[in-house]
Amino acid sequence: MHAVSPVESSPVETPAGAPVRDLRRVHIHPDNWYPLAWSHEVKRGKAHGVRFAGEPIVLVRTESGNVFALEDRCAHRQVPLHGGVVDGEAIRCCYHGWTYDCSGRCIDVPYLGRERLPNGVRAYPCREVEGLIFVFPGKRELAESTPLPPLGSVANRAYKTRRFGREVACHYSFMHENLMDMNHQFLHRRQMGQMRARSLSRRRGDDWVEVDYTFSREAGQQPIGEALVFGQSRQGQKKHKDVMTIRTQYPYQTLQIRTSEGTLVMDLWIVYVPLDAEQRTNRTFGLLSVKRPKLGFLLDAAWPLLIWFTERIFKEDRWIVEREQEAHDAQGADWNHEVFPVINELRDLLRNCGAPPARRVVPIEPEPAAQSCVS
Amino acid sequence: MHAVSPVESSPVETPAGAPVRDLRRVHIHPDNWYPLAWSHEVKRGKAHGVRFAGEPIVLVRTESGNVFALEDRCAHRQVPLHGGVVDGEAIRCCYHGWTYDCSGRCIDVPYLGRERLPNGVRAYPCREVEGLIFVFPGKRELAESTPLPPLGSVANRAYKTRRFGREVACHYSFMHENLMDMNHQFLHRRQMGQMRARSLSRRRGDDWVEVDYTFSREAGQQPIGEALVFGQSRQGQKKHKDVMTIRTQYPYQTLQIRTSEGTLVMDLWIVYVPLDAEQRTNRTFGLLSVKRPKLGFLLDAAWPLLIWFTERIFKEDRWIVEREQEAHDAQGADWNHEVFPVINELRDLLRNCGAPPARRVVPIEPEPAAQSCVS
Amino acid sequence: MHAVSPVESSPVETPAGAPVRDLRRVHIHPDNWYPLAWSHEVKRGKAHGVRFAGEPIVLVRTESGNVFALEDRCAHRQVPLHGGVVDGEAIRCCYHGWTYDCSGRCIDVPYLGRERLPNGVRAYPCREVEGLIFVFPGKRELAESTPLPPLGSVANRAYKTRRFGREVACHYSFMHENLMDMNHQFLHRRQMGQMRARSLSRRRGDDWVEVDYTFSREAGQQPIGEALVFGQSRQGQKKHKDVMTIRTQYPYQTLQIRTSEGTLVMDLWIVYVPLDAEQRTNRTFGLLSVKRPKLGFLLDAAWPLLIWFTERIFKEDRWIVEREQEAHDAQGADWNHEVFPVINELRDLLRNCGAPPARRVVPIEPEPAAQSCVS
Ligand code: FES
Ligand code: FES
Ligand code: FES
Repeated sequence: MHAVSPVESSPVETPAGAPVRDLRRVHIHPDNWYPLAWSHEVKRGKAHGVRFAGEPIVLVRTESGNVFALEDRCAHRQVPLHGGVVDGEAIRCCYHGWTYDCSGRCIDVPYLGRERLPNGVRAYPCREVEGLIFVFPGKRELAESTPLPPLGSVANRAYKTRRFGREVACHYSFMHENLMDMNHQFLHRRQMGQMRARSLSRRRGDDWVEVDYTFSREAGQQPIGEALVFGQSRQGQKKHKDVMTIRTQYPYQTLQIRTSEGTLVMDLWIVYVPLDAEQRTNRTFGLLSVKRPKLGFLLDAAWPLLIWFTERIFKEDRWIVEREQEAHDAQGADWNHEVFPVINELRDLLRNCGAPPARRVVPIEPEPAAQSCVS
Repeated sequence: MHAVSPVESSPVETPAGAPVRDLRRVHIHPDNWYPLAWSHEVKRGKAHGVRFAGEPIVLVRTESGNVFALEDRCAHRQVPLHGGVVDGEAIRCCYHGWTYDCSGRCIDVPYLGRERLPNGVRAYPCREVEGLIFVFPGKRELAESTPLPPLGSVANRAYKTRRFGREVACHYSFMHENLMDMNHQFLHRRQMGQMRARSLSRRRGDDWVEVDYTFSREAGQQPIGEALVFGQSRQGQKKHKDVMTIRTQYPYQTLQIRTSEGTLVMDLWIVYVPLDAEQRTNRTFGLLSVKRPKLGFLLDAAWPLLIWFTERIFKEDRWIVEREQEAHDAQGADWNHEVFPVINELRDLLRNCGAPPARRVVPIEPEPAAQSCVS
Repeated sequence: MHAVSPVESSPVETPAGAPVRDLRRVHIHPDNWYPLAWSHEVKRGKAHGVRFAGEPIVLVRTESGNVFALEDRCAHRQVPLHGGVVDGEAIRCCYHGWTYDCSGRCIDVPYLGRERLPNGVRAYPCREVEGLIFVFPGKRELAESTPLPPLGSVANRAYKTRRFGREVACHYSFMHENLMDMNHQFLHRRQMGQMRARSLSRRRGDDWVEVDYTFSREAGQQPIGEALVFGQSRQGQKKHKDVMTIRTQYPYQTLQIRTSEGTLVMDLWIVYVPLDAEQRTNRTFGLLSVKRPKLGFLLDAAWPLLIWFTERIFKEDRWIVEREQEAHDAQGADWNHEVFPVINELRDLLRNCGAPPARRVVPIEPEPAAQSCVS
């Protein structure tokens, strides 16, 4: 890790001679834990179909309440298993009734003897934490040694957390850049008034980059929603002393606001999960934690306003990143001309940490051996 | 023809070394008669546009009531002739009025002299039988010697026949496999209760394969719709003695139910006509004939129920085969892993009887000589 | 220029040995002035996004009322500038606020010093005439020496002009052929009764072709709308003495009707501007001028009827040319079999005057030098 000046003289990102991969075609690295659904979306005794980068995955909550994840394609004729029926701790395909346990093994074909059972389907390591169902879509043998990410302040009772997210029709890299470049306050001029961000310092490591900002108001009044997000409103003050730190810790992103006394007043954890094989769409899962003030009920009263405020901003961000993806599609290449050094560092990071672009859907491989079903 | 045991030890379908054509890319063989519309869809003095495997075809019913079939593309500027005007026994293109007779010959261009008439369009052999309009899309010289298929019991007054059909977004082969594999009763568990099919024997020839089933009820009551379809309900009996025979006689399919005394109580004739050039959609034409009981009016009274029952089942089948096509599209290949021998035989049959995949739309060829218009 | 007989013996259009470009893939030549919007669509202080052959272009009307045209892609991250904010005589991108003047130069990046401003975006020569905003999408250095086209009788107070147009999903060449081939009256049989066109003579030059027609009524009464369009109705007369001249003066088209005394009673100017990169859609801009009769108010009274009449005809034409494009798409080639000599000449003209097909969207090139913003 090393600190660098927030302004560099040469924002060049293409070293002479070396061809640079088009960032918008870099696939996200599968050897990480990704949330694929909120817990409440997978009801007891039901199956729920999701996707990771074009791979269909079925999340099954058994009658005992456990969740497991399988390839969402019957080994027989590849119809989605999420149309099937949960039977105890297994899932039965809706077409001819082939049945799979949590390890993907085929344990029953109603019209065949037990001795002739065919191979099953791929199982994915799966964990349920804080209302999110995480799946490890990469190399199975790495799942155990790869920790789940820390989820901000969601588990801390001193904070109130909002869960949010939506499908966004763009490559995940646009999302990271959008959040990290606070010079885009102009986009939110109706919500944020005329705020100006100032980057203080940035730091980076092998798989992360972060930047600090302070904000000052150029003109106009502080909207009430902004006051809520940025902690206590301090009337009459032109310059916020709060520091906002935005960090991409591959593949996740966080945004934290601390007061000058060091109190963490806002803590956002967010991740952008590619849906299609081309990775031109993503589903966003966000946990926005706000520190409860001394009088906790004030926050509860203001909560609907905070939701409205963040929804509006999220909607504007979604609109603009989808326009960026459209431009990339029309041009067939990334023409971005970046002048802000931290964004160039972020772009390098996302390129270096991503998967090679050759990754595509592959035929069903039988699992080498049954695994235990305790998740 | 030879009978084989319903259960074989090795369901292998890929002989070592020989690459197998992807069944879902095998085009249907055009040298057969295919129904392209119901008679009532082609009104007197009107033209009706249909498609066979991407080829646009116009069906014209003249003022005298005859039906003929032409390429649905004006020789002049290729606009669809079905937008035109029937003029006596001919069709006039809606754009500049070029006029074609039943043989496809251009017999008038309003602004040219008769001596300068251009070539016409392709005509297709066309026959109207039992409310269906059949066209022979293949080599014209084979039409005469190729018989129309027998249409089940539709012409027999002892049976009442329901005509049905719908567009289904899948390759025709999924339809054949769906109907022939009666192990998919699980799909219809809401309609059929818990029926279990048992295959008795199968037989095959060069261009056909057939299989016999009996059924037994695993649990629950016999739904009333099922009783109607499977002939007289025999209360209290757990095991049906009726035998169901399903046969693909390329390119058609039949399903017949006979009682133990040999009475044919249900007789279904069905065909799946590809619509698009890729043959990923089909239009189904079905004739479902049910033997009238001694008291014929009982069947009439139960008819709406029978319609509802078959609609529901057809809807479930359509849903699942469209999921199969989607899976094939996503994978780009057929990953089916079949364990039921008769389906593997059916798949071989459909591959062997199909057309080579090179077949595509070709430029208009003028007809070598005018044919007679009596259809 | 030379006059030729309206009927030739050989309508061959493919000289032996020479491969002919598919006319429907010939791109329109960009070195001309094209209207991209009506003036009223670009409000004061607003930006409006349009397209020319796949190139996104933003039309900006500044606070002083001037209009300028830029590439509709921010130099920073390529989002459309038409989502931005007009600021005096400049446009500010909605995302990070980069600001461009009428020459495309970037004149402000809110978070960078003036000495570090990046390159800007492409500017297009732009002129506003008679309610149309014209842009020159080709080589900038040719704009000055290329005149705007004469716009029929729109500026003449003796005529009343209707402005009309719509998007049409076809290549512009189908539009030219549709208007020039008056043998397509059969398409408008409901509106025009049974009119028969007769071509008198045709003439051509390097970049134009024109043809004269007279009309006679075959049967039925003259519809009142037709009477309006074709000038004064002359009851009882079977044969119109009026002469219609249709001319393609690349890339524009005109249609004029003159009485036998030489009075110009109708004057249409029209152009078809490709929208997408494949040029399979166009936006039509038309100016239809009708000579005011002695009692001018008669025309005003009949005006709604004239609008209805022309709308209906335009709708039928749009329907048929879209069917032509569909046929071309399905066939993958132009199978037209033309027998009318003037249309073959028109086809040659459109091929010869068109751009080479290699033209596609290209990366942003910075403007060599700032230009003056007086349009
Ligand atoms: S497709 Fe799943 S059991 Fe047959
Ligand atoms: S397109 Fe059919 S007559 Fe011209
Ligand atoms: S994308 Fe236009 S200012 Fe950043």
